[in-house]
Amino acid sequence: MTINKRLQNKAINTIRFLSADGVQTANSGHPGLPMGTAAIAYTIWKRHLKINPSNPNWLDRDRFILSGGHGSMLLYSLLYLSGYDLPLDELKNFRQWGSKTPGHPEYGLTPGIEATTGPLGQGFANGVGMAIAEAHQAAIFNKSGFKIIDHYTYVIVTDGDLMEGVTSEAASLAGHLKLSKLIYLYDDNRISIEGSTDITFTEDRAARFKAYGWHVEHVKDGNNVDEIDLAINNAKADPRPSLIICKTVIGYGLPTKQGTAAAHGAPPGVDELRKAKQNMNWPTDVDFFVPDEVLSHFREIKTDGGKAELEWQASFVKYKKENSKLADELTRRFSRELPARWEENLTYFETDEKGMATRKSSGAVMNTIAESIPEIVGGSADLAPSNNTWLKSSTAFQSDNPSGRNIHFGVRENGMGSIVNGLAYHGGMLPYGATFLVFSDYMRPAVRISALSHLQTIWIYTHDSIGLGEDGPTHQPIEHLASLRAIPNLSVIRPSDANEVREAWISAIKKRSGPTALIFSRQNLPTIDRSKFASAEGLHKGAYVIAELGENRPDIILMASGSEVQLIIGAGQKLAEEGYGVRMVSFPCWDLFEKQSQAYIDSVLDPSVSARLSVEAGIGLGWEKWVGDKGAILSIETFGASAPGNKLFKEYGFTVENVYRTVKKLLGKGSE
Amino acid sequence: MTINKRLQNKAINTIRFLSADGVQTANSGHPGLPMGTAAIAYTIWKRHLKINPSNPNWLDRDRFILSGGHGSMLLYSLLYLSGYDLPLDELKNFRQWGSKTPGHPEYGLTPGIEATTGPLGQGFANGVGMAIAEAHQAAIFNKSGFKIIDHYTYVIVTDGDLMEGVTSEAASLAGHLKLSKLIYLYDDNRISIEGSTDITFTEDRAARFKAYGWHVEHVKDGNNVDEIDLAINNAKADPRPSLIICKTVIGYGLPTKQGTAAAHGAPPGVDELRKAKQNMNWPTDVDFFVPDEVLSHFREIKTDGGKAELEWQASFVKYKKENSKLADELTRRFSRELPARWEENLTYFETDEKGMATRKSSGAVMNTIAESIPEIVGGSADLAPSNNTWLKSSTAFQSDNPSGRNIHFGVRENGMGSIVNGLAYHGGMLPYGATFLVFSDYMRPAVRISALSHLQTIWIYTHDSIGLGEDGPTHQPIEHLASLRAIPNLSVIRPSDANEVREAWISAIKKRSGPTALIFSRQNLPTIDRSKFASAEGLHKGAYVIAELGENRPDIILMASGSEVQLIIGAGQKLAEEGYGVRMVSFPCWDLFEKQSQAYIDSVLDPSVSARLSVEAGIGLGWEKWVGDKGAILSIETFGASAPGNKLFKEYGFTVENVYRTVKKLLGKGSE
Repeated sequence: MTINKRLQNKAINTIRFLSADGVQTANSGHPGLPMGTAAIAYTIWKRHLKINPSNPNWLDRDRFILSGGHGSMLLYSLLYLSGYDLPLDELKNFRQWGSKTPGHPEYGLTPGIEATTGPLGQGFANGVGMAIAEAHQAAIFNKSGFKIIDHYTYVIVTDGDLMEGVTSEAASLAGHLKLSKLIYLYDDNRISIEGSTDITFTEDRAARFKAYGWHVEHVKDGNNVDEIDLAINNAKADPRPSLIICKTVIGYGLPTKQGTAAAHGAPPGVDELRKAKQNMNWPTDVDFFVPDEVLSHFREIKTDGGKAELEWQASFVKYKKENSKLADELTRRFSRELPARWEENLTYFETDEKGMATRKSSGAVMNTIAESIPEIVGGSADLAPSNNTWLKSSTAFQSDNPSGRNIHFGVRENGMGSIVNGLAYHGGMLPYGATFLVFSDYMRPAVRISALSHLQTIWIYTHDSIGLGEDGPTHQPIEHLASLRAIPNLSVIRPSDANEVREAWISAIKKRSGPTALIFSRQNLPTIDRSKFASAEGLHKGAYVIAELGENRPDIILMASGSEVQLIIGAGQKLAEEGYGVRMVSFPCWDLFEKQSQAYIDSVLDPSVSARLSVEAGIGLGWEKWVGDKGAILSIETFGASAPGNKLFKEYGFTVENVYRTVKKLLGKGSE
Repeated sequence: MTINKRLQNKAINTIRFLSADGVQTANSGHPGLPMGTAAIAYTIWKRHLKINPSNPNWLDRDRFILSGGHGSMLLYSLLYLSGYDLPLDELKNFRQWGSKTPGHPEYGLTPGIEATTGPLGQGFANGVGMAIAEAHQAAIFNKSGFKIIDHYTYVIVTDGDLMEGVTSEAASLAGHLKLSKLIYLYDDNRISIEGSTDITFTEDRAARFKAYGWHVEHVKDGNNVDEIDLAINNAKADPRPSLIICKTVIGYGLPTKQGTAAAHGAPPGVDELRKAKQNMNWPTDVDFFVPDEVLSHFREIKTDGGKAELEWQASFVKYKKENSKLADELTRRFSRELPARWEENLTYFETDEKGMATRKSSGAVMNTIAESIPEIVGGSADLAPSNNTWLKSSTAFQSDNPSGRNIHFGVRENGMGSIVNGLAYHGGMLPYGATFLVFSDYMRPAVRISALSHLQTIWIYTHDSIGLGEDGPTHQPIEHLASLRAIPNLSVIRPSDANEVREAWISAIKKRSGPTALIFSRQNLPTIDRSKFASAEGLHKGAYVIAELGENRPDIILMASGSEVQLIIGAGQKLAEEGYGVRMVSFPCWDLFEKQSQAYIDSVLDPSVSARLSVEAGIGLGWEKWVGDKGAILSIETFGASAPGNKLFKEYGFTVENVYRTVKKLLGKGSE
């Protein structure tokens, strides 16, 4: 064995035992993946990955994702060894309260973590988003002599990732788009939690990925650095995305557990681990052992990476001389500053009784905004004509047209969600994804992670109630407003007319550290006369008094979101004619409202007025909070039905007349 | 053209124009699919499908699913023509209030509809569940000389279906399981809503399905009955599941729209439709035209099907003579009667301070129940050892062991959900699917459809809160209890100890027309002393007073579900020692509680007691309904964190001490 090989093996074993020690010390975690893929990770990080541990945000770095996030100790070991700001003590504190080494990697918490992974398949699809971002930015910013944007996305994926449907969706799209800078290394250990993959996963994975249009390589020995290295070089040379299938042994080195499901998700045990160390001539008297020469070997990544970034910076200075506007623009995009005056040209919609669908006004508003903010890129899961999400000033993103800003995601909602997250993780992008509201169910795993990871992603959901009509209950969201509101850190905004749509978009653009779900109608909604009613800017407070009729303290507070605001306005006017004091509240967004001062909240929902009615064409879950014990909720507690939308609104009681009647009953009851 | 071919063409055009007239009359719907696949549907229904329109429930019928449910007029045309109880007037009433012909097919509403489809990919995966049911029942019930169970599942699938990840999951499993009686016909029209499939779906679909282990056939002309017929015969002869890729023209016959996205989802228009009829020599003076000879031709399906069932019945009589127990058992399973005395052997769990995880008591209870109810079949998405869902008295369902009752679903949650639905649709099964609660997000589309279709499916979700500990926020459900409760007709039950687990299972088994989600803890929970506290049978009412301390009207009502019930018991006892009157309510299931009489509800949540506290380790959304304006909610409104579970319970305030303090504050406030 040459000295080099000896050191290499030592380095790989360092990864193995740091990871195993982390798991054993926490008495919780997954040793199998890190021990089985240590050589793969070593090869990527030491021979290929272009990173600068001193600056985790260098924009032209390669991206690395561990899609099987349960193997997080692999990542933490690599981050520590290569010199990121993650001390060894953090590894010793694995999975403990307040540590930077949680059970699954969390974006934003630990320097060098590029994506929050764990729910399987998400990391796979995030990588596709990152590669789209790279290709797109390269097309826009690279100029003759300057490859300012030129990086790879490496992803380690597992059996579980490959079984998940979201992976299939993303892989099919990646193949179609010929994302050549995607290099995936598949930890083919043939073991899942229930046992050998023979029990459920016997498809020909290589053939499947070839069918998607991927380049597929085989590595017979996942511990052979040179073999892995060669496969990566072949992948780099191929114009397609690459899957490198590496035969590995789960929990490699554990004397009785390696190669079995027992190595997957439980600490190896003190004895087992000691024997593993003995077999590999590793010291057993100390945990978290890092040989000095190994640390130096890994820390070369830091020095080399620092140099690489310096070279890039030097090149960028030259680039800037010749392309100053582009250079400034690139810097701006990655600094997450919005362009100056992006709000200036936004449409004010004139009063219009007939009005328009909020999905249509959204299309108009987003097109105007997208002209000012060129990093807005996204698309629909094959519903762009219905979602009104096509950016007219641009073209489709395709392999022969990577500067296009419209992505045809296909009928792949979950893949779209995770790819949009990947665009956001990459940086320099403001991505969106669209579908019907009811199909937000298909992409819920991705939406949840966008909220958890504080990503600015914009989810556009149209056809927002039974108002969509004839398509019937399979397509009519009933519980979706409530179930989206349930996700922490996700703002759910359902505007009532075109002018609230404009403000909703402004809110989504301004929320720089979290996702927004914009909820739009299929059917026309009147554009409210803002000379008589309050300004739509009230939307930014979540709820606002859109009108108050009567001179004294209101007898009743009516509140509604979206298409139902017109119903409370109609009923309110009728009640006012009878002499009632009526306050009408447009209530497009709960979480914005909850963030207001108590004084503001009380100014809208006057605590002394207990007669309150909420009107929303969905389940009532949670409206109790706003209407209180003496209030009432006009809602839909069953699934919808197939019929024209206006017929359904009548049958389900969403009419001015029924709102009026409900209020009268409520007031009658209140005066008993 | 022979007379036969002439009639055949006429029959196919009848399907086309009935469908197009339905859409045009409704001025809403999707003509493209029915017009493009009319010949495919004709070939299946007229030459292959074993059905008896007079008895849609004949248990050995072939199953037919239209996975692209938007083409529902195809189905309604076929049902009417072949003589199901669906009059022509219903077709004229397509997509109208109260009709049996909704926009997307709905199981249970229209005779002959085998599955609710529309959300793409679901029908594809339902078929896999049906084929598993067929193979399983065949293995159990068929005896030498008697193929009592012997039917195919035919599914028409679309581009959209094949793009969805749920399809990939189900297809991979179907290939692994060698479900030879699955015959899928792919409407390869190369058109999606955003345009040609060239823009996003260019993978080699035949190669992909071959990689899954499927047999693939090509039909060059999707209007050629003989070619389709031959492909189906080849599919029947092959031991693998089959995909028949049929080249079709969307909206075939529409002079300007055929072959374009314009034919997909909008009425053709009166002129366009008239010209189409003219071109095909179809009468234009009358809509919904059905030539007499065509009706007779199709109605042969009814006479032939009646005969086929009679023959089967005759064979069944003979079978019964030789296998009377089996015959009775088959009849019982399909009649949806539970076996006698299935509840008898259920475990009563002894008081135990240490207790056990509810996922463990669930494993014990379900194993006992499953011994009495042999139609219980299911599995986990690769988490059986963690979910405790393995049926120990049986083996794994595999191609060489189809009588096994444990399905290894693999890491395929959405596929699992839809396959479980397919098992339920098929009949004679009581299926379940399991994963971690947080991953219910991955299978939400299937869970929603189980609720919409009134299927008795049992969803088992373990690791139900931050109590799961170190795996951290990606794995910790926070919003999932709320978001599942939001689905109409889904019972969400979160038992507090082993004895409530038993009752929860009884409740799920007895709910014969809808799904139940059973929510279990990862961590140990004490088994409550039921000699001192109320019987766990109170669970069936959704919420019940588990203990009341103090002699007068309670000062406070404490309520909790699952692992938090022990906290309110602890705090309640402490408060009682100080002289407070305390009522403690175990609240495992909202929807069961909502179904109780107002008198019962008031007996639990005494309206005169306004000091109320709910304690649940998840978001508070909706608890306002139960605690009222003067109550308080102890909840988690952010994501979780990675640390040991008991540490997290402390940090998030879920301790007896903090419940106690919160009550004191609440009572103090209440007395201001």
